[in-house]
Amino acid sequence: MSSSRVIATYIIETSLPLQQAAEVLAGEQSTGTFVRVERESDDIRARFAAQVVQIEELPPSGSAPLPGTIGDPRDRKRARVRVQFPLDNFGPSLPNLLAAVAGNLFEIKELAAIRLVDLDLPREFADRYAGPAFGVEGTRRLTGRTEGAMLGTIIKPSIGLTPQETAEVVADLAAAGIDFIKDDELQGNGPHSPLEERVKAIMPVLHRHADRTGTMPMYAFNITDDIDRLERNHDLVLAAGGTCVMACINMVGLSGLEFLRNHAEVPIHGHRAMLGSIARSDQVGIAFRAWQKLARLSGADHLHTNGISNKFYESDEQVIDAIADVRTPLHGLTPTVPVLSSGQWAGLAHATFRATGTADMLVLSGGGIHGHPDGIAGGVASMREAWASAERGETAEQAFASSAAIRRAAERFGSIRV
Amino acid sequence: MSSSRVIATYIIETSLPLQQAAEVLAGEQSTGTFVRVERESDDIRARFAAQVVQIEELPPSGSAPLPGTIGDPRDRKRARVRVQFPLDNFGPSLPNLLAAVAGNLFEIKELAAIRLVDLDLPREFADRYAGPAFGVEGTRRLTGRTEGAMLGTIIKPSIGLTPQETAEVVADLAAAGIDFIKDDELQGNGPHSPLEERVKAIMPVLHRHADRTGTMPMYAFNITDDIDRLERNHDLVLAAGGTCVMACINMVGLSGLEFLRNHAEVPIHGHRAMLGSIARSDQVGIAFRAWQKLARLSGADHLHTNGISNKFYESDEQVIDAIADVRTPLHGLTPTVPVLSSGQWAGLAHATFRATGTADMLVLSGGGIHGHPDGIAGGVASMREAWASAERGETAEQAFASSAAIRRAAERFGSIRV
Repeated sequence: MSSSRVIATYIIETSLPLQQAAEVLAGEQSTGTFVRVERESDDIRARFAAQVVQIEELPPSGSAPLPGTIGDPRDRKRARVRVQFPLDNFGPSLPNLLAAVAGNLFEIKELAAIRLVDLDLPREFADRYAGPAFGVEGTRRLTGRTEGAMLGTIIKPSIGLTPQETAEVVADLAAAGIDFIKDDELQGNGPHSPLEERVKAIMPVLHRHADRTGTMPMYAFNITDDIDRLERNHDLVLAAGGTCVMACINMVGLSGLEFLRNHAEVPIHGHRAMLGSIARSDQVGIAFRAWQKLARLSGADHLHTNGISNKFYESDEQVIDAIADVRTPLHGLTPTVPVLSSGQWAGLAHATFRATGTADMLVLSGGGIHGHPDGIAGGVASMREAWASAERGETAEQAFASSAAIRRAAERFGSIRV
Repeated sequence: MSSSRVIATYIIETSLPLQQAAEVLAGEQSTGTFVRVERESDDIRARFAAQVVQIEELPPSGSAPLPGTIGDPRDRKRARVRVQFPLDNFGPSLPNLLAAVAGNLFEIKELAAIRLVDLDLPREFADRYAGPAFGVEGTRRLTGRTEGAMLGTIIKPSIGLTPQETAEVVADLAAAGIDFIKDDELQGNGPHSPLEERVKAIMPVLHRHADRTGTMPMYAFNITDDIDRLERNHDLVLAAGGTCVMACINMVGLSGLEFLRNHAEVPIHGHRAMLGSIARSDQVGIAFRAWQKLARLSGADHLHTNGISNKFYESDEQVIDAIADVRTPLHGLTPTVPVLSSGQWAGLAHATFRATGTADMLVLSGGGIHGHPDGIAGGVASMREAWASAERGETAEQAFASSAAIRRAAERFGSIRV
């Protein structure tokens, strides 16, 4: 038996008194049912009940209550609530942890908003879950990019290329000096480009490049599929000398990621597609800060954080926080590589480096490389020169003045961010 | 190659013209990137692009836009949008389907609301995914409840009982004539009640009952855990003669459920805890109608739908729709059993039966059985008498007049619903 505790932090809104609403939540997620029942002794309540340890009232959000909420809207209050769960209620099992700290609580009608925003997990979770096997250091070793930002791209167009056409794009990217290439998350294992054929077409190109130059770009083959196919897909990549597999974490599940981690011999590129379904609303769901801890424990070597000036909904501040979250130590786990993507191009390097203070990242530029006016070579050069300049401490203006590739990128993608 | 299509139905809100917003969605989820790139030929667009096939404008919801939404709020419109995806973009793979029909779309800043409400899936999915192995007929066979509603309960208190105490509750429930018992979703495999010890304590009780009476209640052991442990947990139940395992679908992932299905030799009781994180908001996420198809394809023999007059946020209308959804045929899959729970007691039988028109359901009464004034025996009797009365076509008033157990239940749980 352990005296360890998990602390879950929520943002709630409610028309009930805050203390009462918090206790409804804690009750539903531990000892409660809708009536008190036989054998539900005070001793059981004392030992197993989740406890509300802090309530901090916040200004109201002004958002509409979630559907089905009860209570007078005029009484509505908002608060950050911290609830403590005895670890022994579920043990250090991520799926069973989720049943307790998330579970049915999003359905509670007393809550007009309910969002799990953070999780403080005891070290038992890191004892049971190995976390990333490669992370920053392993990825640098395998790509040969021992310092500076690791620069990558996505195969574009996302879908539609044959394996042979994909391999031609890969050859161009490798020749241009890219560190990392990934399949689009939409490119799975369909009949137009079966994974096996992609591996067969692409790996020889990478091997030839490595023979010539001594380094091989890392290619993240999207192996997302049913659990029973993950191992086979991984083994196919491994057998061909591949150095990375990509999994859409929300499609295989955190549990699927963890399963893959236990079998993988190359880094796992963790894509976060579909996270918006739980993370975008500020009224319901699970925030990235909480979720990324589960993904890291489950073994994501690389984890998407989005990038600044992205084409999606997140603000720069949210993105910078997400990158910081992924870089925050977690019980000694091997550090996961934050992956910046969406709308990324050379003109964002200086602002990104200044805001994050690190180059231990994988910066993916899809359109910003494939759509560069001088093609892939120009696109990769613009990214490399921009990041090298930022890391040297130059200003964005200095980079613009000294790099033709950056100036050409700016013709297409707009002004460089200073 | 196949000419089959998937049609995804969304509810969106946007300040862009509706056609344009729908095309942003379709583009992001198929051929698009933020700039047009090399090799992105018209031919590729024609063959692989997702197509907007219908836009039906709806009255505005009045809800606040999702965080990060762009555009003038005064221009905001709401619509039901149907988008068609070539099956060959991803093949009949549920994880890769989700990357396309869900994926990044919840993050699109042009959308002020974005909810996946339905999926029309071609038959190729049912060719690849076996669906339930037992379903209604298999569950009736194993429980011996050949007609009428299957009545069940949850072990209460949810957590805190030792395996031995749990077995005592099980003995009482079996003696009272229950068909089905389940672990609470909060009861996983923690140190106070390890799964193995629960199985060891409970199964002999059930076997003794079966030896005496000829029928054994089905006990759904909660085997939710890491993927690598699911088989072992299942095998433990199977070896002890158990007839059901329970998995929290959102904790093991739909993929974890499908993995379990491929290895299971007993029905899988599919709990939907945490579904509220994607399903509760009407602004974002995935509706039950779409999600339950994925859960059924993935092999859920039993699937939670909630019940009327429940303690959670859903209206009776939503619950009735959910039950109908689960009962709607899907490419010849074995019918899944809808599982009604939350706040269920004898007084809801007539209203539920009238609204659903079926007894091919598993009705779980937790507090309504354990909290009955005359204890478990009274609770089970009240449920059995109420459902038998409803199925005979009697009115609720007739049942109330003829059953002391129902009248006693009403003393505690309120008026019977007519």
